[in-house]
Amino acid sequence: MILFTSDYTEGAHPRIIEKLAETNMEQTVGYGEDLYCEEAREAIKKVCEAPEADVHFLVGGTQTNFTVISSILRPFQGVLCADSGHINVHETGAVEATGHKVLALPSKEGKITGQQIKEYYDLHWSDESREHIVQPKMVYISHPTEVGTLYTKAELEDISSICKECGLYLFLDGARMGYGLMAPGTDVTLPDIVKCCDVFYIGGTKVGALFGEAVVITNPCLKQDFRYCIKQKGGMLAKGRLLGVQFLELFKDGLYFEISKHAIDMAMLLKDGLKEKGYEFFMDSNTNQQFIIVEDAKLQEIRQKYGVTYQERYDETHSVIRLCTSWATKEENVKAFLQDM
Amino acid sequence: MILFTSDYTEGAHPRIIEKLAETNMEQTVGYGEDLYCEEAREAIKKVCEAPEADVHFLVGGTQTNFTVISSILRPFQGVLCADSGHINVHETGAVEATGHKVLALPSKEGKITGQQIKEYYDLHWSDESREHIVQPKMVYISHPTEVGTLYTKAELEDISSICKECGLYLFLDGARMGYGLMAPGTDVTLPDIVKCCDVFYIGGTKVGALFGEAVVITNPCLKQDFRYCIKQKGGMLAKGRLLGVQFLELFKDGLYFEISKHAIDMAMLLKDGLKEKGYEFFMDSNTNQQFIIVEDAKLQEIRQKYGVTYQERYDETHSVIRLCTSWATKEENVKAFLQDM
Amino acid sequence: MILFTSDYTEGAHPRIIEKLAETNMEQTVGYGEDLYCEEAREAIKKVCEAPEADVHFLVGGTQTNFTVISSILRPFQGVLCADSGHINVHETGAVEATGHKVLALPSKEGKITGQQIKEYYDLHWSDESREHIVQPKMVYISHPTEVGTLYTKAELEDISSICKECGLYLFLDGARMGYGLMAPGTDVTLPDIVKCCDVFYIGGTKVGALFGEAVVITNPCLKQDFRYCIKQKGGMLAKGRLLGVQFLELFKDGLYFEISKHAIDMAMLLKDGLKEKGYEFFMDSNTNQQFIIVEDAKLQEIRQKYGVTYQERYDETHSVIRLCTSWATKEENVKAFLQDM
Amino acid sequence: MILFTSDYTEGAHPRIIEKLAETNMEQTVGYGEDLYCEEAREAIKKVCEAPEADVHFLVGGTQTNFTVISSILRPFQGVLCADSGHINVHETGAVEATGHKVLALPSKEGKITGQQIKEYYDLHWSDESREHIVQPKMVYISHPTEVGTLYTKAELEDISSICKECGLYLFLDGARMGYGLMAPGTDVTLPDIVKCCDVFYIGGTKVGALFGEAVVITNPCLKQDFRYCIKQKGGMLAKGRLLGVQFLELFKDGLYFEISKHAIDMAMLLKDGLKEKGYEFFMDSNTNQQFIIVEDAKLQEIRQKYGVTYQERYDETHSVIRLCTSWATKEENVKAFLQDM
Repeated sequence: MILFTSDYTEGAHPRIIEKLAETNMEQTVGYGEDLYCEEAREAIKKVCEAPEADVHFLVGGTQTNFTVISSILRPFQGVLCADSGHINVHETGAVEATGHKVLALPSKEGKITGQQIKEYYDLHWSDESREHIVQPKMVYISHPTEVGTLYTKAELEDISSICKECGLYLFLDGARMGYGLMAPGTDVTLPDIVKCCDVFYIGGTKVGALFGEAVVITNPCLKQDFRYCIKQKGGMLAKGRLLGVQFLELFKDGLYFEISKHAIDMAMLLKDGLKEKGYEFFMDSNTNQQFIIVEDAKLQEIRQKYGVTYQERYDETHSVIRLCTSWATKEENVKAFLQDM
Repeated sequence: MILFTSDYTEGAHPRIIEKLAETNMEQTVGYGEDLYCEEAREAIKKVCEAPEADVHFLVGGTQTNFTVISSILRPFQGVLCADSGHINVHETGAVEATGHKVLALPSKEGKITGQQIKEYYDLHWSDESREHIVQPKMVYISHPTEVGTLYTKAELEDISSICKECGLYLFLDGARMGYGLMAPGTDVTLPDIVKCCDVFYIGGTKVGALFGEAVVITNPCLKQDFRYCIKQKGGMLAKGRLLGVQFLELFKDGLYFEISKHAIDMAMLLKDGLKEKGYEFFMDSNTNQQFIIVEDAKLQEIRQKYGVTYQERYDETHSVIRLCTSWATKEENVKAFLQDM
Repeated sequence: MILFTSDYTEGAHPRIIEKLAETNMEQTVGYGEDLYCEEAREAIKKVCEAPEADVHFLVGGTQTNFTVISSILRPFQGVLCADSGHINVHETGAVEATGHKVLALPSKEGKITGQQIKEYYDLHWSDESREHIVQPKMVYISHPTEVGTLYTKAELEDISSICKECGLYLFLDGARMGYGLMAPGTDVTLPDIVKCCDVFYIGGTKVGALFGEAVVITNPCLKQDFRYCIKQKGGMLAKGRLLGVQFLELFKDGLYFEISKHAIDMAMLLKDGLKEKGYEFFMDSNTNQQFIIVEDAKLQEIRQKYGVTYQERYDETHSVIRLCTSWATKEENVKAFLQDM
Repeated sequence: MILFTSDYTEGAHPRIIEKLAETNMEQTVGYGEDLYCEEAREAIKKVCEAPEADVHFLVGGTQTNFTVISSILRPFQGVLCADSGHINVHETGAVEATGHKVLALPSKEGKITGQQIKEYYDLHWSDESREHIVQPKMVYISHPTEVGTLYTKAELEDISSICKECGLYLFLDGARMGYGLMAPGTDVTLPDIVKCCDVFYIGGTKVGALFGEAVVITNPCLKQDFRYCIKQKGGMLAKGRLLGVQFLELFKDGLYFEISKHAIDMAMLLKDGLKEKGYEFFMDSNTNQQFIIVEDAKLQEIRQKYGVTYQERYDETHSVIRLCTSWATKEENVKAFLQDM
């Protein structure tokens, strides 16, 4: 069985495993205050061109999202996001469990616009009964989105400037950040993200690490006491150096970008091959997630040999499926799959 | 610098690192539904002699505590524990953050008694204003406790039978379970714990794993939908197999018990050596944490070469310090330390 | 200035004021355990034909909604409701503040259908990733709805039977219950509501009382320890007898129904008069809230003499406004308003 | 049966009932934005000598406490209070239900000291593991306390200056404020409280109103968006003018102080009479709550004719009971009680 179900089907990039083995019996202090974490923080600040930023390591994405959001909002404030946003649909209400409403906006290909945000904001503040309504105070976007699409630099800057104008904090979920940065045609760089966002994270779990997400806080107002929040929400790993070692390796010699590029190459191989064979795409994605429409009978057949993710029903006889590549995807597997299609 | 500061100063037992490396490029499904997790669950049920139990893997201790507690209690219910209990003092109010009051009882050497529980329960239910008071519904104990002590089988059975009588759930925090089970003089076995508790966990983070805690739910009423809770609270690891691989290795050929025994041997070497040299103990512990009283000047000197944890002030010229051994402690380091004392 | 802005512009029905004055210096115990509360509970059970129900008095609607919902759901469960539902739009995220996601369904004229509920339920339970999604466990409906419409008995029974089939609790917000029961054409009675719902409340604030909502719990599984919830959520009035006295008076000699009928008569007078004058209605309502479309210039003019509630923009030159009648509405005021229109 | 059980056994002062009746059929806007509320806010600011303060009206004490506390603290912050404090013992964990730990300090006669606060603060900030511990950020005191005692002006100023020094917010629960201000021997005035506290409330429920608490926010940093908090937490009364009318009447012509004085006179009559008869006092109180030690047999006898509150067991044959006077206590009842003792 060959799995294209997700970007977390394997362990970690071999260099990370080696480094973990190599440093295994060293003694360090816990909770992210060791030297590996310190160096990894510096490496991330460097690649972000953000020497003043704070960097923190957490274990997983859902945890990162609710920890960041609940650290910032007051009880009556909510977070705007695409209705397809991960926090709105796939985190078992983790944000609401911290007390905050997720304010879902209709989205197009997983994205929202600055204009939508502005309109929502204006509607709230022009309403005489606004104290009876959740106050929007933060915007959450995913880049790449949950359906593989990307914001352009112009779109991102538009959202960012509207957020600044409205006093909304902009939080970018970069669980698949690497796959976005290395996508063909994107004009968004890591320093662009730094400039646009108040806080964001660089995903490790889906991009070569065993686990781990690196939160980067650029807005100084949001820095204070964030470590208390990590601890309270269960994200402070006792053996914090595991996160340091992994992120340090990922950001040494550009490994993070190199393996992200590999995933993209494999995704493009898949995309081009499927296009050639006449498959229709549900969403035009240049990142590591590809969404195609297949006949149900064909899907049955595919599943004899391959793991794919059922996304949704397309029509009575067709389904939408998701195919993921990753840092670990083997070219031979993509080719075998294409042949079978 | 040699660290005796905690039981999480190293990575994982070499056999775990090897197994993680060996299985690294295998493809598995995520979120704990892979075969390694399945086998690890079976191994744990076997060693617990609890074929009907549910076993779940979470990443860390604080996370495990608040996930278990909040999955069980209704909003107005609280959890009784020793005032020295980890959830009461060292989890940044993580349980309260889920909405529940921690009902701290005065403790002796880190322990509470069945009688204390019964009295608290009776006081609550005999109070005409009880609806104005948090309702006790759960008891949390640590075994070993935060100060290294252990419940006897009789004490545990007493607490358990009172909990059953009062309709209170008994939850045992076994972050250092292995070190308790292998302590000299203890009469408590894993199956005893199964019989006494409604839910408990077997710690991996402090006993040989990179991270991970295995929650064992024995009370059938507490099993339903626990995976939703894990996900919502951020404890569902995407690459769940990492937890499966680790726990499977720990419970193969008795590795968990063997390495726990090693930590205890090192702790007893330390204890006996220090006793011989005339050091006074703050707490009589037969587990891997030893608490001694040292002169402040001596402490200064120790800290030139060794990492130890400051516990509390003893008197004007003395401090209490904590020394931890673990599965990873080297005999030569203990001997060197003793020599320097 | 004559106000048609809401159904809480006056104090209480004079008989209630009299009764409060008359009983004012009597001494009673607090927190709803006095004889007035006891009698009022009996009166409500009688009119509901529900001798086994539990009845509790709370102060206001938002408070009642989040207290009931949070008393029932486990942390990962959510409540389905119309997107126009009060808990979704006008309670400042009060339900989310207790940790639960409000699962908004598209609504038609403020209502949802059994079929929508069934589809949502089926979608959830057929999803392999359902543990990553909030579990639907309760349905919240308003009767009358926020836009003045009513469920038919058949619709209500359909929702109820689907809820029972799916193990979902049905909670009915009856903040304007009286105005629904007395509406022309409705076939829904209070005993029908008892039969269909697991829990509901009869609004006092908007129907003749100074304040107060009577929660009726018919499902025995939801009764336990509800008073702890009321206290914790701030809804347990010290001088609880104020609620008892008011509800006792409302349900003596059918006062509640009589004054509700008056509000409906006034609303129908208004509706018929406006229809006659050619005004268009935004929503066809037979209850005490009437929604009409007016030219912006006309609205300006109206506001010189009358208070009305701006609902939403209709088109570039027209607005939708809400007009409320209540137990306190004077016929002369309605007639004056009609004349000015 | 004559009740001395609490200070909320009657309705409201007759002048309040009259005013409610008189204004009953007036039409006003809701939610505290009417003219009565506006005037009442002005009256309170005047009597507080605090023209810059914000004043808000809520319905009850528990509600006020958790609304104020949760509006101010970040998730990982807690509130220091006496272990006997109302929020710690008699609010069913309402503060914890909003996510915050109540940090109970040992108290003497219901009070805590500036020194205790300073020591707790210093201990926290000197602890290297402080991120694992709830951060103290607020101090809650009751004046009068739950056992009838009072802070002196010097004690209050000491607490206040330490709070300012440490960046802790000082919140004073004045549920029985009037009885404190009119107590013989007190040197604390309302303007003193304004100067010392960041936020406090003046209780209405126990001092002549049907219900209602007036929150006074003096620290400008705590003012923003408090009305959203009131609404979310269920404290925003639809017919808000009821609170305005009541507080306006209470602060017209000094009624609040006059009726508080009456309660104190009755309490002193009781105290002196009981002293004369040789009864021992559990606590020396100059406010409206008196705590005496009685033989169990005597208590049985008392309860034939009088309602009193059982406080706690004193010894095998004696109990501590609480006797409350209020604005409504009749001198003849006190005298009858004294005679029977």
